[in-house]
Amino acid sequence: MNRIRILGLDPGLRKTGWGMITLEGTRLGYLGCGVVQSDGDLELALRLKQLFEAIGRVVEEWEPDEVAVEETFVNKDAQATLKLGHARAMALIVPALAGLPVAEYGANQVKKTVVGVGHAEKAQVQAMVRILLPKSDAKTADAADALAIAIAHAHQRKARSLGASLMRA
Amino acid sequence: MNRIRILGLDPGLRKTGWGMITLEGTRLGYLGCGVVQSDGDLELALRLKQLFEAIGRVVEEWEPDEVAVEETFVNKDAQATLKLGHARAMALIVPALAGLPVAEYGANQVKKTVVGVGHAEKAQVQAMVRILLPKSDAKTADAADALAIAIAHAHQRKARSLGASLMRA
Repeated sequence: MNRIRILGLDPGLRKTGWGMITLEGTRLGYLGCGVVQSDGDLELALRLKQLFEAIGRVVEEWEPDEVAVEETFVNKDAQATLKLGHARAMALIVPALAGLPVAEYGANQVKKTVVGVGHAEKAQVQAMVRILLPKSDAKTADAADALAIAIAHAHQRKARSLGASLMRA
Repeated sequence: MNRIRILGLDPGLRKTGWGMITLEGTRLGYLGCGVVQSDGDLELALRLKQLFEAIGRVVEEWEPDEVAVEETFVNKDAQATLKLGHARAMALIVPALAGLPVAEYGANQVKKTVVGVGHAEKAQVQAMVRILLPKSDAKTADAADALAIAIAHAHQRKARSLGASLMRA
């Protein structure tokens, strides 16, 4: 059966979480997770360069077939939203330049897929990640969130391919 | 006298304006301007790839020494601000990856430097760009704005080097 390698990214300017899983038929497997960071003392262009290069190293090392990025909104203020837009752009452009398909999922969509409800608490998401990927050892919330995004993408894929099988039947 | 090549960028997801000028002593010179675009029918990651590659071609062709990017705010809604953040990130990351210094200027700072008042109308900015760069032929507001950003950077540079001369005197 085809084994797909999925990279989930939870973008943030200071910390971007990443999580790698496999999907084989309907089975999920854990590969790795972590966080890449930018140095807050540097100017913005150089911080983006740090994220660009660090995400590039993750893509190079883990060779995903598909990438999923969280579509987050910060409603705090325009400055914070703009910053998040800069960081998200690094999560989108690096896989796009590598020719990989990039899917986007809203935060509530991720929670709904992983926990079953759209407004789940962060702790619930992390608990479900540990249940669905028993071998995962996410040390930070950002890494766990990135795994949740990868899981959400895997579920969407399964739903799509089930739909395709039913269509063929 | 040292001749500096300055690229100004006015970022936007659909259209990013660019303008190239030279600064030799206190004299400004016009080199070129235009607009690079992304295709609104494509998904976001691919639109960012288009901007990344198009800005990359401008940098490669015009070989700027320094780059200036407008720090714009959209207070319309979070979605629009996030989009702008994605586009701005392309204007910041491309020169950063090329090892070029990138300066950022607020929209009001650009207007104040070019027109003399922080809340100038767009038409005033464009008129001043034509006066300061008589050979410029910006066909669009985005290209004229990009030239205004490059001019603002040139003025800031002059002010800094004047300050340095006074310090040495």
